[in-house]
Amino acid sequence: MTRDDALALDKADPLAALRDQFTLPDGVIYLDGNSLGVLPRSTAARVQQVVTEEWGQGLIRSWNDAGWMDLPQRVGDKIARLVGAGAGELVVTDSTSVNLFKVLSAALSITAADAPQRKVILSERSNFPTDLYIAEALARERGFDLQLADADELPALLNERTAVLMLTHVNYRTGRMHDMAALTQAAHKAGALTVWDLAHSAGAVPVNLHASQADFAIGCGYKYLNGSPGAPAFVWVHPQHVNRFWQPLAGWIGHAAPFEFTPGYRPATGISRYLCGTPALLSLAALECGVDTLLAADAHGGMAALRTKSLALTRVFAQQVQATCPGLVLASPADDNLRGSQVCFAHPEIAYPVVQALIARGVIGDFRAPDVLRFGFTPLYLRFVDAWDAAEHLRQVLATEEWRRPEFNQKLAVT
Amino acid sequence: MTRDDALALDKADPLAALRDQFTLPDGVIYLDGNSLGVLPRSTAARVQQVVTEEWGQGLIRSWNDAGWMDLPQRVGDKIARLVGAGAGELVVTDSTSVNLFKVLSAALSITAADAPQRKVILSERSNFPTDLYIAEALARERGFDLQLADADELPALLNERTAVLMLTHVNYRTGRMHDMAALTQAAHKAGALTVWDLAHSAGAVPVNLHASQADFAIGCGYKYLNGSPGAPAFVWVHPQHVNRFWQPLAGWIGHAAPFEFTPGYRPATGISRYLCGTPALLSLAALECGVDTLLAADAHGGMAALRTKSLALTRVFAQQVQATCPGLVLASPADDNLRGSQVCFAHPEIAYPVVQALIARGVIGDFRAPDVLRFGFTPLYLRFVDAWDAAEHLRQVLATEEWRRPEFNQKLAVT
Repeated sequence: MTRDDALALDKADPLAALRDQFTLPDGVIYLDGNSLGVLPRSTAARVQQVVTEEWGQGLIRSWNDAGWMDLPQRVGDKIARLVGAGAGELVVTDSTSVNLFKVLSAALSITAADAPQRKVILSERSNFPTDLYIAEALARERGFDLQLADADELPALLNERTAVLMLTHVNYRTGRMHDMAALTQAAHKAGALTVWDLAHSAGAVPVNLHASQADFAIGCGYKYLNGSPGAPAFVWVHPQHVNRFWQPLAGWIGHAAPFEFTPGYRPATGISRYLCGTPALLSLAALECGVDTLLAADAHGGMAALRTKSLALTRVFAQQVQATCPGLVLASPADDNLRGSQVCFAHPEIAYPVVQALIARGVIGDFRAPDVLRFGFTPLYLRFVDAWDAAEHLRQVLATEEWRRPEFNQKLAVT
Repeated sequence: MTRDDALALDKADPLAALRDQFTLPDGVIYLDGNSLGVLPRSTAARVQQVVTEEWGQGLIRSWNDAGWMDLPQRVGDKIARLVGAGAGELVVTDSTSVNLFKVLSAALSITAADAPQRKVILSERSNFPTDLYIAEALARERGFDLQLADADELPALLNERTAVLMLTHVNYRTGRMHDMAALTQAAHKAGALTVWDLAHSAGAVPVNLHASQADFAIGCGYKYLNGSPGAPAFVWVHPQHVNRFWQPLAGWIGHAAPFEFTPGYRPATGISRYLCGTPALLSLAALECGVDTLLAADAHGGMAALRTKSLALTRVFAQQVQATCPGLVLASPADDNLRGSQVCFAHPEIAYPVVQALIARGVIGDFRAPDVLRFGFTPLYLRFVDAWDAAEHLRQVLATEEWRRPEFNQKLAVT
């Protein structure tokens, strides 16, 4: 494929105009929207409005007058449309880690009531570490075992001891995507509940929580949803489970009547009981702008169209790199059905400095320990020529051995 | 006291210039800084910088280049100076509710290891409800009892069954302030640990965690610290306890080496293990501006000088209202030593509509169920003439029975 071929693909791209929704730095090809999304054009003005008008002028009155109180639900309803959940079933709150704690805790409570002999939380060894840490802590607390296995081993390990199958839908490092419906069905057949982390799925690949019959899901606001650094996360619970138990982070915003200030906890009906403390309003308002950039794709085919473009982008990049960078091994699935919206390559020795050399050239991906070069492709704002150019930069970094420069071999605090 | 007397007090006020740090709406006397602080002049520009430069241009690189990674500690060190904690002992993270869960959980873990026969969490019946909800949930989870009592009964209830004395230093409704050092000493004498909620103390009254020998403390970023609506909260743990246990919200940012992405949790040394997920950066950056407005008082005598002014303000307001509004009963302590930075009055029937009528006049306090009119006094930006004028508005609302208007008797969602 030539650069002109890539430019031709961009010309024919029905989603090309969606890129205009964002402010992108000059000279940057940003392949890290799976770590931190980019800035929507609408965000700065909206945040400024919240700061200077709603907070500065409205002060405490804005909890009523500016709709602050309902913002977790309002933004939640928008995200619900991206992941196949119903209105009123999903809220924005806290961090992904904290929300995982809540839903896993609820899943274990349901297990303890319905099937107390089930004592195993089953997950993937290469799941995102924070998910494993939260599960490890909670398993210890509640007397469960955390069992880790490779992805392919999971179905065979579901059995009468399994309480919960807890998975990240798209692997943060390799981009490998689980079949949510099939694994959920297998878990249910074995009598287990499912908890899905959609951190690398929401806004990246089509997700249909109801069609998959998932039980619990959480996800991230600052990756593909472009919600701002550390934007709050979201939590969804299937309506059949949502009112069965409290979650232990029983804060006042999740109370049935927060402003009665009564001493006993009475959880709100429905997903609002998964709220806890006062939401971080500036970050939450910014998240709404990010989610809106995805909903804007509805006019062009929505998540299905974004998925088609994402797969095409990742194919272009993977094929170019494979054709021109013989030292790198594809670490993401070549099969479209198994790949999320990212492409990873592995190199046993030089993954770190190669990524740093690329960043210096303005091609921003990231290194993931121990040996992965990770490149996220967000179809909302990336062009085919970006994928082609990124592959060419990578070829040059390797061909010139630019990565050997000392500055690219210094370890940064955050990688 | 006449209005001219109040103006004379303002003229002599050595802290008067600190008010210039804030943007206050015209025609508003804001007596609700204990619910949501006001907008510092520096915040809008700083948030805009984070949005457009650090995020928009720097993107993921700002975790290193803009110091995002250390922000929870950096802002924490600033707050530490306001509450008598050491550098490196306090971090900003999550919400007050979530942080209470963490520290109470740690306190119960220490109890379970050191004194397993202790099974009671002792708290105040009129503590802020979210504190009681979190304690109720955690007590249930861990097999402890939550015992509630009136403030005066607490010392006598500390005994060999008490695991933790959990209190809010200044009561959210009445403004009554506990003697932190005395109660902590009494708790320790009985063998119990202490957890202090500083939501209505940090930035409002002098607090010295080390001198008080407190064990755990949490506090709020969006009240007296002027951090923005829902700004993240803070958590402090005495160095003697901090490394003893994990807290169960074992997220990746609290890991000893977050970017190694190893599957087993290994908590960071020190207070950083109380971090969990990625911080809400916009809200966190705004909080730093708010904290800086308090540190600016250092040049004028710091928290001690603020306290002197706060007491004078609350005295002026309380005395004027008592002299001119015979139907209202003072619900805050008259004794300076027992009163935080707020003044409350009770009325069995008309507290709600009177507060609404005052808000319509631009005098913003709040109603707290069932019968309290609450007025917060933040010496950073309030003047003596504000206290005088607010009392006069209250007198007029009562004298004219303005509160009878139907619009003041409609219940709002958020009160």
